[in-house]
Amino acid sequence: MGLARDTRVRWALEEVGQPYDVRLVSFQAMKEPAHLALHPFGQIPTYEEGDLALFETGAIVLHIAEHHAGLLPGDADARARAIMWMFAAVNTVEPPILELVIARIHEGDKPWAKERLPLVAERVRNRLKQLSARLGDAEWLDGAFSAGDLMMASVLLRLRPSGILDEFPSLAAYVARAEARPAYQRAFAAQLAINASRAV
Amino acid sequence: MGLARDTRVRWALEEVGQPYDVRLVSFQAMKEPAHLALHPFGQIPTYEEGDLALFETGAIVLHIAEHHAGLLPGDADARARAIMWMFAAVNTVEPPILELVIARIHEGDKPWAKERLPLVAERVRNRLKQLSARLGDAEWLDGAFSAGDLMMASVLLRLRPSGILDEFPSLAAYVARAEARPAYQRAFAAQLAINASRAV
Repeated sequence: MGLARDTRVRWALEEVGQPYDVRLVSFQAMKEPAHLALHPFGQIPTYEEGDLALFETGAIVLHIAEHHAGLLPGDADARARAIMWMFAAVNTVEPPILELVIARIHEGDKPWAKERLPLVAERVRNRLKQLSARLGDAEWLDGAFSAGDLMMASVLLRLRPSGILDEFPSLAAYVARAEARPAYQRAFAAQLAINASRAV
Repeated sequence: MGLARDTRVRWALEEVGQPYDVRLVSFQAMKEPAHLALHPFGQIPTYEEGDLALFETGAIVLHIAEHHAGLLPGDADARARAIMWMFAAVNTVEPPILELVIARIHEGDKPWAKERLPLVAERVRNRLKQLSARLGDAEWLDGAFSAGDLMMASVLLRLRPSGILDEFPSLAAYVARAEARPAYQRAFAAQLAINASRAV
């Protein structure tokens, strides 16, 4: 039921044109043994396909990308670089963004919040400067749109509420291009429909 | 020249029995254009093989594991789960550990350090509790040793100076089993030899 990470999996499935069923998990159920058996860290999303059960968005998206055309290039070197960008998204760009989210949400009421937040935001900006320099005026990170772009755009999307993404126009445009993809639109609409149905 | 992340790549190469050459990069050179062309975030390690250049430790280790026997199981589902544990290492377990490192090293002199450190350490403990519960009394995370264990043990190793790893005996033993592997021993010795030669 979280907005952030299950959207990545829906998006990947829409990009490769694979149908899927959704099973919602409440915040309470996420901490219960049945869910912990699927996801030892008590989070979402999880993914089930026959006898295979996976957690970790990056691993699920990579699994989907490896088994269906549309998210990884055919050339072996280009494929390795697309996977490299997936790891860069979750291990280099996301950690400072997560730290900013934690600083705002979980430590927003602490006495140090006001003085510390700009430090954390600066770490995010440093990463975005480097990413922006690498992207240059290219459309995607390395040739055609790939699972690497799907993960990177998803990670950057978490920054939008902070206003920091808009300080980097080429990255903001990159994320907007990603969001404009029909597959993203379908994934987002499906997510929104569920949220709306739960809100009634 | 950093101890932490290039050891992961050395270790993977030792596990699969592939020889390699090392090119050292100084802290200064890491920020220069020639290195930024290889690694847009100005870090180490990078990896070069023919025309392919990669950064991101997870991507490099996965690339090595995909092309040489020894780090990924043959069964397709088990392979997907091994990759899942690689992502879990870098995207779920490492971020709070990195936050703890940053809190100690980069914010250790801040007025909030003393009050905030226990909060950050508690986030690390929560993850380790969950990981420890999943590992149980198994030797490795999912069947035989895999690239998932290589990455997870490497991430947990960063915690040792904090003393937190030793609060979880089964995880401390898991890391010790990983370190006892001949391939790890060779990688660590090679790293140590370089550090020693630089210290002279």
